[in-house]
Amino acid sequence: MQEKAFIRDYGIIIGSMDIGKQNAITDVAGVMVGHQTLKKGPKQTGVTVIKPHPGNIFKEKVIAASHVFNGFGKTVGTIQIDELGTIETPIVLTNTLSVPTASEALIDRALKENPDIGRTTGTINPVVGECNDMLLNDIRAGYVKKEDVLSALNKADQQFEQGSIGAGTGMVCMGLKGGIGSASRCFSIAHHTYTLGVLVLTNFGRTNDFILNGKPVGNRLSQRIAEKEGMSELGNHKDQGSIMMVVATDLPLSCRQLKRVIKRAGIGLGRTGSYMGNGSGDIVIGFSTAHLIPHDFRGKPLTLAMMADQDIEEAFQAVVEATEEAILNALITAETTTGRDGKTIYSLHEFLPDLL
Amino acid sequence: MQEKAFIRDYGIIIGSMDIGKQNAITDVAGVMVGHQTLKKGPKQTGVTVIKPHPGNIFKEKVIAASHVFNGFGKTVGTIQIDELGTIETPIVLTNTLSVPTASEALIDRALKENPDIGRTTGTINPVVGECNDMLLNDIRAGYVKKEDVLSALNKADQQFEQGSIGAGTGMVCMGLKGGIGSASRCFSIAHHTYTLGVLVLTNFGRTNDFILNGKPVGNRLSQRIAEKEGMSELGNHKDQGSIMMVVATDLPLSCRQLKRVIKRAGIGLGRTGSYMGNGSGDIVIGFSTAHLIPHDFRGKPLTLAMMADQDIEEAFQAVVEATEEAILNALITAETTTGRDGKTIYSLHEFLPDLL
Amino acid sequence: MQEKAFIRDYGIIIGSMDIGKQNAITDVAGVMVGHQTLKKGPKQTGVTVIKPHPGNIFKEKVIAASHVFNGFGKTVGTIQIDELGTIETPIVLTNTLSVPTASEALIDRALKENPDIGRTTGTINPVVGECNDMLLNDIRAGYVKKEDVLSALNKADQQFEQGSIGAGTGMVCMGLKGGIGSASRCFSIAHHTYTLGVLVLTNFGRTNDFILNGKPVGNRLSQRIAEKEGMSELGNHKDQGSIMMVVATDLPLSCRQLKRVIKRAGIGLGRTGSYMGNGSGDIVIGFSTAHLIPHDFRGKPLTLAMMADQDIEEAFQAVVEATEEAILNALITAETTTGRDGKTIYSLHEFLPDLL
Amino acid sequence: MQEKAFIRDYGIIIGSMDIGKQNAITDVAGVMVGHQTLKKGPKQTGVTVIKPHPGNIFKEKVIAASHVFNGFGKTVGTIQIDELGTIETPIVLTNTLSVPTASEALIDRALKENPDIGRTTGTINPVVGECNDMLLNDIRAGYVKKEDVLSALNKADQQFEQGSIGAGTGMVCMGLKGGIGSASRCFSIAHHTYTLGVLVLTNFGRTNDFILNGKPVGNRLSQRIAEKEGMSELGNHKDQGSIMMVVATDLPLSCRQLKRVIKRAGIGLGRTGSYMGNGSGDIVIGFSTAHLIPHDFRGKPLTLAMMADQDIEEAFQAVVEATEEAILNALITAETTTGRDGKTIYSLHEFLPDLL
Repeated sequence: MQEKAFIRDYGIIIGSMDIGKQNAITDVAGVMVGHQTLKKGPKQTGVTVIKPHPGNIFKEKVIAASHVFNGFGKTVGTIQIDELGTIETPIVLTNTLSVPTASEALIDRALKENPDIGRTTGTINPVVGECNDMLLNDIRAGYVKKEDVLSALNKADQQFEQGSIGAGTGMVCMGLKGGIGSASRCFSIAHHTYTLGVLVLTNFGRTNDFILNGKPVGNRLSQRIAEKEGMSELGNHKDQGSIMMVVATDLPLSCRQLKRVIKRAGIGLGRTGSYMGNGSGDIVIGFSTAHLIPHDFRGKPLTLAMMADQDIEEAFQAVVEATEEAILNALITAETTTGRDGKTIYSLHEFLPDLL
Repeated sequence: MQEKAFIRDYGIIIGSMDIGKQNAITDVAGVMVGHQTLKKGPKQTGVTVIKPHPGNIFKEKVIAASHVFNGFGKTVGTIQIDELGTIETPIVLTNTLSVPTASEALIDRALKENPDIGRTTGTINPVVGECNDMLLNDIRAGYVKKEDVLSALNKADQQFEQGSIGAGTGMVCMGLKGGIGSASRCFSIAHHTYTLGVLVLTNFGRTNDFILNGKPVGNRLSQRIAEKEGMSELGNHKDQGSIMMVVATDLPLSCRQLKRVIKRAGIGLGRTGSYMGNGSGDIVIGFSTAHLIPHDFRGKPLTLAMMADQDIEEAFQAVVEATEEAILNALITAETTTGRDGKTIYSLHEFLPDLL
Repeated sequence: MQEKAFIRDYGIIIGSMDIGKQNAITDVAGVMVGHQTLKKGPKQTGVTVIKPHPGNIFKEKVIAASHVFNGFGKTVGTIQIDELGTIETPIVLTNTLSVPTASEALIDRALKENPDIGRTTGTINPVVGECNDMLLNDIRAGYVKKEDVLSALNKADQQFEQGSIGAGTGMVCMGLKGGIGSASRCFSIAHHTYTLGVLVLTNFGRTNDFILNGKPVGNRLSQRIAEKEGMSELGNHKDQGSIMMVVATDLPLSCRQLKRVIKRAGIGLGRTGSYMGNGSGDIVIGFSTAHLIPHDFRGKPLTLAMMADQDIEEAFQAVVEATEEAILNALITAETTTGRDGKTIYSLHEFLPDLL
Repeated sequence: MQEKAFIRDYGIIIGSMDIGKQNAITDVAGVMVGHQTLKKGPKQTGVTVIKPHPGNIFKEKVIAASHVFNGFGKTVGTIQIDELGTIETPIVLTNTLSVPTASEALIDRALKENPDIGRTTGTINPVVGECNDMLLNDIRAGYVKKEDVLSALNKADQQFEQGSIGAGTGMVCMGLKGGIGSASRCFSIAHHTYTLGVLVLTNFGRTNDFILNGKPVGNRLSQRIAEKEGMSELGNHKDQGSIMMVVATDLPLSCRQLKRVIKRAGIGLGRTGSYMGNGSGDIVIGFSTAHLIPHDFRGKPLTLAMMADQDIEEAFQAVVEATEEAILNALITAETTTGRDGKTIYSLHEFLPDLL
């Protein structure tokens, strides 16, 4: 795995909380991330998967919640998350038109792992989020195949790369190359340390709105990009992208509390310059690894730990900080990319020292 | 307390589940109901309170949920119920324009019982539901005073009367005298017996739509009422009323599960002939007494029991049956009443044998 | 098209409102329904599509709303419906595990019809609902192919068959053969006649709970089925199915009002005996054909007609009646079917005269 | 009216859009704001009202929407706003325990202005928001009387003061004196200029989190406050306050679109340093003055203009900018205040030049 510079390596520190060992979503024990990258000419797309734990997630579900900031999106699986408060598959991220393929791959895999599905127990709820990578990727071509999703699932690991990789391969964010980014925060409640991590797929925003750790650098950045492109001015564009945010924590939370936590991801997003544009499907899905919920435990109640709501403020702050940093990590680790029709989108690191 | 005939006394059995000892919401241990009735000429109104347990509810909250079927109503307190999943005051029912008075009474009482409110801890979230009793009551007159609410709170008991009493004094339901009704169901899960009770304040519906245990008796009833009023035909009217439904159970449920349970109250309502008319604010609030949630337990997690969702189907059926029966009990126990402008609304029991 | 007896042909009249010419969802002008049936041995499944109008729905959208009664389901597309208040594809119904295939078919077709998707305009939001037909169909086999969905789309017509057909082929409802059913209602507002139609895919409920036009015939039906199967008693089963309800109307409604209307479908459902069991994903999607919303009309406001909320009560009653009747039509038109593992599910018409 | 310096007077420019003539919510034509301030010793509270237009709002409603970021609050009236998409009273802001009094005052006034309420038409839905001013105000004392609310209503004007006034009298925000603030933005769509204004009641946040136009000045501010108080360090505190945000616009929007717009207020809030703490009831209510909706228009549809969703992005950006600036205006115009128990809370302007 190549060594990339993250936003902290530029001296940009988001917030005040401690970070996890890797400053990534996989700092939450058991969480694994895998990518499959499809990259050649007009093919600039891929798949990223987040596994809540290494086991059979259908048989041992985790408490989950989703929140839709802007529903101009095609994410699937949230209806059942909202009703039952659990997820039962890994979360897959890909391009908008490949959601069905990714869903099918999750179903195939669940059928294989669970011969009782469709026989003695019910069906499976695949969870797939998406952004539209049509600017760099020929999204009409349908490059993503089921094998690509299975490959990403198989490669899932506690170590994973960020940037223009997996589902992030063809994404564009505030006029810069977007992609996959991550960050984490640690905090103590009553002498116990908990971790919260965020992974984002960034494809949102307008160049002029870009805020870098509080500094509105959008106009300057816009000028620099225009210069690179040999233009006098960069036309401002609509925010037609999206962002998918995935939050993991080991804090014992009910699904109600988890929903409270993940709703704060929108603040971290807003601090990077987004105003959640009309065309931007901005959606967050979160889960807690604190409890494994058996697929079938009928007959007697399950006993679950739940933090006091007064105590989860640390998690509120953590998700705000980690989301903002994850977005910046996606931007700084993504590489300048030339895709469909020879369109080139530059990486933030080509401009960064100058913007500070 | 007078002996009234309930709908079962007419041989009308709703559903198939066992009923509790009193067939009332107070079959759930600890739950108490109290009324204050204001009844004289154009004054036909009052207050009904439901206490989840006999103690200090602010200090020991119960898990709660609310669901709005039709939000053309003025119920207060549901925003915080939805956010925190608890209630911290008794639930008060009264007429629409007396909601502020009832809220104020709950606040006054909470301030008195909890000297720390507004000093070392935060404030209090009063929960008040309402229906509009303007047909029989001079609702503009503002008859309900804070003392009336406090009186109802003080009179709360495991035994309580149903019919044209308390908040139900001036209510009208499907052209009949409405009011307070209740019913309960018992069921076993894994050798443990649980109870679920419903209390309704009925003020909804059109005469012609009335369904009595599956039988569409509305047109016949409409004809009978017209005869009593010396008219050849009873004009059909809009459904401008409302229904407040309160569900109590001792089943250990999370607030997510409790919301699932109480949403089924709408089916019981629909089976009596309601189609949730435009002007009908149809709202349900539920709570579980299985856990007392301390006002402040920060520092370590609380451990809560939660049933499997597969196991709570019994509660789904129970709330459907109990809601339908509670509505019919409200109708059969309410007495023919003459109110504002000499308007008389008849009781169902004046028509019942003939309708069967 | 074969001539089948509908529930009205047995003298069972649901409600009091007038019905449309065909008593089906296609009484709403422009609406078309098509089926693709896959039926042979353990293959008992298929596809049903509902087109809001004959044109290019992506280019001319219709105002839409969705409501989730019970989210234990895998319907896709509702996030964007809720955000934007429109649908832009036909609605496809199929079995649970074929949702991705159906989504992909809708995407393929939209790409073909709209070369600007993914080039100069954004992507497409496929809308697919489902029920789990695993009792009769080998759902793990993945019989439904994209071609089947396209075939159903191509066959869509104002005339369509009901019963064990299309997506309804393998469905089971209250222990009886379920399937596709439909009904409609007409009503006048200010001298103008409007139509509302409902189409259901029925796969819900327990035999013992079955209510036939108000009459609780479930226990008797259960006994009759047991006799047919040569058993002394039919074990009561969990409600693990689902129901998808689709509502169409030509009434000019905002998406807020449309949501109010379709929420009443739950009452019609409840009147057939459902209490929306834990495993039953009960979801309704509705649309109004009164306005065609251009894909892109930026630059000046669109002018839309909106009924007064006081006036749409007729639509509330219509959706309650039509949903109940559509369910009964699904049951009475569905044929006794033997599917996977030789399991036979009987049609209601084998029991009906005896149950009345 | 005294001349106060606003945040722009310090050279701090939030965002890039044009501001309205007054840079206040009353730049939206017809909108009026009034205050009643109660200020003496431990009495540090009051009332602020926002009138959507000068007429009878019950008879001529405006399209409205509400959104709850954090429901740990006691705002009333949102259930009906969400159901019917309109408001029918002015919006009143006050302290948490005075919500019932304010509701009652709105009811009294509506009854007086509309003799048909409770006679030939239904009731009235008062809309009241709140924050908890217990730090400076003896909130248990119940200082606010109905007369105070009526007085604020009567004083409503296009010109209004900001800062420690009206409902803002006793509020505390990020350790600084909070209160009432406002800002506005103008933007053109298809050669037509529209205005959007925001008014906030600020009572949220922790000192250390304060972000001033992107600059994290919280720690420095915390140190400065500690010095003023003669302490070496200021203990960090929980975010137990709240913020009420009111958005007005003359843009023709449906209630769905208006909800989309006002949800972006959370981004402006987040940019000032809030992470929507557990105890912070963060709620926004918005209305559009573009249409007056008659109380009763049954019989024929109303014709309403609706912008394309692609066109309302300007409003998204406007609400983000105006909310952030309104919060800063509240802080900079609020005066250092000594209240209950001699507690003194300082104004931002005592620290500002030093913080820049």
